[in-house]
Amino acid sequence: MSYKMMTKDELKRLRSELLSEYEEKKSQGLDLSMARGKPETSQLDLSMPMLEIIKPDTPFKGEDGMDMRNYGVLSGTAEAKRFFADMLDVSLENILIYGSASLALMYDTISRAYIKGICGSEPWSRLEKVKFLCPVPGYDRHFTICEFFGIEMISVPMDDNGPDMDMVERLVSCDPLIKGIWCVPKYSNPNGIVYSDEVVRRFAALKPAAEDFRIYWDNAYCIHHLYRDRQPEILNIVSECEKAGNPDMVYEFCSTSKITFPGSGVSAMAASKRNIDETVAMMSVQTISHDKLNQLRHVMFLPTQKALKEHMMKHADIMRPKFEAVLEMLEKELGGLGIASWTKPLGGYFISFDSMEGCAKKIVSMCKDAGIVMTDAGATYPYGNDPKDSNIRIAPSFPPIDELRKACEVFIICVKLASIEKILSI
Amino acid sequence: MSYKMMTKDELKRLRSELLSEYEEKKSQGLDLSMARGKPETSQLDLSMPMLEIIKPDTPFKGEDGMDMRNYGVLSGTAEAKRFFADMLDVSLENILIYGSASLALMYDTISRAYIKGICGSEPWSRLEKVKFLCPVPGYDRHFTICEFFGIEMISVPMDDNGPDMDMVERLVSCDPLIKGIWCVPKYSNPNGIVYSDEVVRRFAALKPAAEDFRIYWDNAYCIHHLYRDRQPEILNIVSECEKAGNPDMVYEFCSTSKITFPGSGVSAMAASKRNIDETVAMMSVQTISHDKLNQLRHVMFLPTQKALKEHMMKHADIMRPKFEAVLEMLEKELGGLGIASWTKPLGGYFISFDSMEGCAKKIVSMCKDAGIVMTDAGATYPYGNDPKDSNIRIAPSFPPIDELRKACEVFIICVKLASIEKILSI
Repeated sequence: MSYKMMTKDELKRLRSELLSEYEEKKSQGLDLSMARGKPETSQLDLSMPMLEIIKPDTPFKGEDGMDMRNYGVLSGTAEAKRFFADMLDVSLENILIYGSASLALMYDTISRAYIKGICGSEPWSRLEKVKFLCPVPGYDRHFTICEFFGIEMISVPMDDNGPDMDMVERLVSCDPLIKGIWCVPKYSNPNGIVYSDEVVRRFAALKPAAEDFRIYWDNAYCIHHLYRDRQPEILNIVSECEKAGNPDMVYEFCSTSKITFPGSGVSAMAASKRNIDETVAMMSVQTISHDKLNQLRHVMFLPTQKALKEHMMKHADIMRPKFEAVLEMLEKELGGLGIASWTKPLGGYFISFDSMEGCAKKIVSMCKDAGIVMTDAGATYPYGNDPKDSNIRIAPSFPPIDELRKACEVFIICVKLASIEKILSI
Repeated sequence: MSYKMMTKDELKRLRSELLSEYEEKKSQGLDLSMARGKPETSQLDLSMPMLEIIKPDTPFKGEDGMDMRNYGVLSGTAEAKRFFADMLDVSLENILIYGSASLALMYDTISRAYIKGICGSEPWSRLEKVKFLCPVPGYDRHFTICEFFGIEMISVPMDDNGPDMDMVERLVSCDPLIKGIWCVPKYSNPNGIVYSDEVVRRFAALKPAAEDFRIYWDNAYCIHHLYRDRQPEILNIVSECEKAGNPDMVYEFCSTSKITFPGSGVSAMAASKRNIDETVAMMSVQTISHDKLNQLRHVMFLPTQKALKEHMMKHADIMRPKFEAVLEMLEKELGGLGIASWTKPLGGYFISFDSMEGCAKKIVSMCKDAGIVMTDAGATYPYGNDPKDSNIRIAPSFPPIDELRKACEVFIICVKLASIEKILSI
């Protein structure tokens, strides 16, 4: 029965029951987290063979003819390039291999635009203002990068197909200070949205006022499906941009962080040859070469796309029951109450939860008091400011499933309590 | 007999002999390099056990209590910090662990100063001009970083004790636009100088006009001795700066690039807690954590300072004969001719060679034509401009010793020829 149909007395009675449940949970001294998209231990175990894969008789001279144990091969080994080119369906010349995580690659890409500009345009550090579009809810670390560089963020709402493209087209075409847009096009963080073909095509066909406008396409979850039989595909942004006559308009990012080991993976950028060449030239000031031994480990451990896909299904088999457990509990406990909605993603690392307006901060803070760490309310919005104070990102991946259930129980109690308070206060 | 004492006819006769030797060398189709400070293959082999050191039963939870295979521990594992703290003789709180090479750490340190400033001072991007002092001859990649950020470089001459400290003190104390100085204090690149205690103390006691002046102390070769019995020590700059009341004035950099695998090592910064804290805070925007598995490999492979020292002596045993071969050939062929001088380093990766004025470019270019790649003449000076056109950096480490001898023979012929041309033209 919907809370809003209940009388004040019924609600108060319910609140008092829930409060004692909450106090009971609190007394358990829980210390659980649904805050960050971290793989759980058994997912890490999947890649253990990779750590021993290099043997004394491993050939260290790859196709480049260089000893992978020594300096050189700035843009990445040919073998690592092929791995990512196959994964992202682009040519070898469109791939740049980077360090152990794509976040640093994204930061550095923005940093270089700030210091030197993009393909001959004015460095952003010399401009009065630079603006980025940020589809919301989105990934907090993208927003933090923007804040660090003083980039003004403009929120763009999303629906089930991706960002509001009418708004994106209008803003991008009229404002030359808009230099970029952050996108997580597949299993978006946090709402699990998969951009539709139409959305991708409209992205590729943008007519930006700024010549140095780029789409920052963070394809972090491109092969991170939860199901064997439901694996939506998105259009290839690099080739779509090419077809639309905008070959240089996109930087695509990805990594093996959530394929093998977070923080000890290999990251890569896909982009036009012009963008790659420019990036490599600037990168040559910063480093001599990234860790080629780690590149070697990865291509030895996942030598084919088939091996990669099979490996990802092992991740899915660990992740899926957790997502389903959370979704089941939410449905059972909150379904029909009219106080919340949530996404049912087919991949990625998050469930996006929307409480009643004005309740998210309260819920997260109550969870914290009971020993359950959630991502900060508001974190999914630029400047940490969710105007409705309703979005909460749930990350079910890290805790073992029994702990996850415990955490979820507390979360549900907090949602109910905050909602009742809200309804009673209206 | 000194060339300058020879008659023109004698010189011409000698030149004609040398020219036919040169042509003979040229006809051999050599393809050798004495250009970069790269370890040779057998040095890489020394660290092969490290690549297999992580086993299925390795404990991945370190002192930090975090699984090293997952996200987290931004500033580096406790174990890796201890490794570098011991190596550089500083406290754990003075250490920050970085990625796979110190060049990126140095670039990023400059980059953060450019974007955000240092400890509250104005970001360099907003200043009309920023200047750095560059002891010469020096490391070309330091200079390239300065050029990238538009930093004006001022050359400071060096003697056997280090940079000209009268000049450094005078410039630093009067010009607030001077924000830094690059130093390779031990076995300096390329001249192998070890800074004297007095020089280090005068560095620590500098009274810079700029509050954000920092000493960029690239201690790349701190344990890279060539000899067992001659291992000069330098004073600890971090503690000297502290003693002198300038605790925040230095960033010290180092890495395991030339200890284990170049480009696949672990790098670190030593500095005051204030500098470290600021760097970590800014770094949190750029990355979640560096490669902790590689940190783990390193501390398992080199668990004690004793193990580290023994390991470095194996490098020395490979490097020393090469340095001695080159020095012997230079002495035998060029000694007493009055046309060149060179350093006799006790460690590091380079021999610094000075030809007669105006001959370095010619020598390097003749070497190239005969298939011997040397570091570009001038590269050891800011803007690639050696005002005397005399300094050439010799890197004996990479080629096997028989190839090194061949390369050196050609080099010597080129030095003689260019010198004769020079003398004849006066």
